[in-house]
Amino acid sequence: MTPPIQALFFDVFGTLADWRSGIAREARLLLSQRNESTDWIAFADAWRGEYQPGMEEVRAGRIPFSRLDILHRHNLERVLPRFRLSDLDEDTKRNLNLAWHRLDMWPDVTEGLARLRRKFRLAPVSNGNISLMADLARRNDIRWDAILGAEIAGDYKPKPRVYLAACEAFDLPPAACMMVAAHSNDLAAAAQCGLRTAHVARPNEYGPNTGETGPRTKVDYAATDLLDLARQLGA
Amino acid sequence: MTPPIQALFFDVFGTLADWRSGIAREARLLLSQRNESTDWIAFADAWRGEYQPGMEEVRAGRIPFSRLDILHRHNLERVLPRFRLSDLDEDTKRNLNLAWHRLDMWPDVTEGLARLRRKFRLAPVSNGNISLMADLARRNDIRWDAILGAEIAGDYKPKPRVYLAACEAFDLPPAACMMVAAHSNDLAAAAQCGLRTAHVARPNEYGPNTGETGPRTKVDYAATDLLDLARQLGA
Repeated sequence: MTPPIQALFFDVFGTLADWRSGIAREARLLLSQRNESTDWIAFADAWRGEYQPGMEEVRAGRIPFSRLDILHRHNLERVLPRFRLSDLDEDTKRNLNLAWHRLDMWPDVTEGLARLRRKFRLAPVSNGNISLMADLARRNDIRWDAILGAEIAGDYKPKPRVYLAACEAFDLPPAACMMVAAHSNDLAAAAQCGLRTAHVARPNEYGPNTGETGPRTKVDYAATDLLDLARQLGA
Repeated sequence: MTPPIQALFFDVFGTLADWRSGIAREARLLLSQRNESTDWIAFADAWRGEYQPGMEEVRAGRIPFSRLDILHRHNLERVLPRFRLSDLDEDTKRNLNLAWHRLDMWPDVTEGLARLRRKFRLAPVSNGNISLMADLARRNDIRWDAILGAEIAGDYKPKPRVYLAACEAFDLPPAACMMVAAHSNDLAAAAQCGLRTAHVARPNEYGPNTGETGPRTKVDYAATDLLDLARQLGA
């Protein structure tokens, strides 16, 4: 018999946080006086484009686990020359790297999570590190029960350890936990570990009509946003 | 130069949570119909009495890290015979073991933490496991920025790894973090790792006038409760 769902785990970048306009805004704020003509959305896309290759080094065991802040910084160094920004001073680079800590959530997120919290334990199960998740929660008025995810597990999604470590931290069997994400590969990996899954559509993640409008894998719930998910779950 | 304090780390059992009356209350609720004459405060003290020896097995490396819920259950099995409770059924034992998840905080804690939160990142750095800390936070309306401590570190206080893993999770040098506890040995160990320290007096932890009324080691702050600490820190 399937146990009732007791905890919801959330992917963050893309599913909750609008990283693309946030990174573009922060980069523009810091650097537009220097490089007036830069396309900051292209800069955000380029930086994010290094995301999976950076984590793959860890997942494949070629480098030991490093927090996402460290990988973001490494990726930033790769991207800066393409935008004629190689000579940024250390303070500016450090501040720019923390742009990921200053993202805003999609408009339904704060209220949606507050509603879901009445009925479920909530935690981010993101590849972002703990301090990054803590800063996003403060900025966006989110109450997590705990911050789980990559830094707790010492590996990156979609490796099974990340989902399973989250279930263990809440002392719950995987079937009592549901992964919520806008990315079908994340949900398919969670389902493989025995978790239940909910897809949230974020059609504009990479710009208008670029994201998944619906699940591309079998899921337990498919929602248009977190308020819709709360409705479907009776929260 | 000493950096400004950016994060406060809290011991929980004794410093924030009144474990003694809480465990006595929960045991009485579950078991008083069975054993009418039991001294439930003595039961709480006996259970807590197994706390340090249980963790010492882990700290000394004789057994691998196990979450506090597991150690509490093991300790419970040792204590039950002394109170003629050896024959409890599994469901009752499991429920009784979760009494640690249903503790109340001392009266100043919820408001004190809410005030301190305006100025500092806050996290428990307790030997309690993540789900235990999450349940206490919900019950007592506490907003942590993250749940740090033993389960993140894979070892128990006062081992240095526990304090240092907490600083690392917040990406802060130890000198920017302050350990807050009612127990001087916890503070001395944190100071040894470079953290700053604040003592909070909990004179009634083990019953009237049994706890530390002041620090027995050099500390940066000594407070009568969390509201006093908030005042001293300008929060």
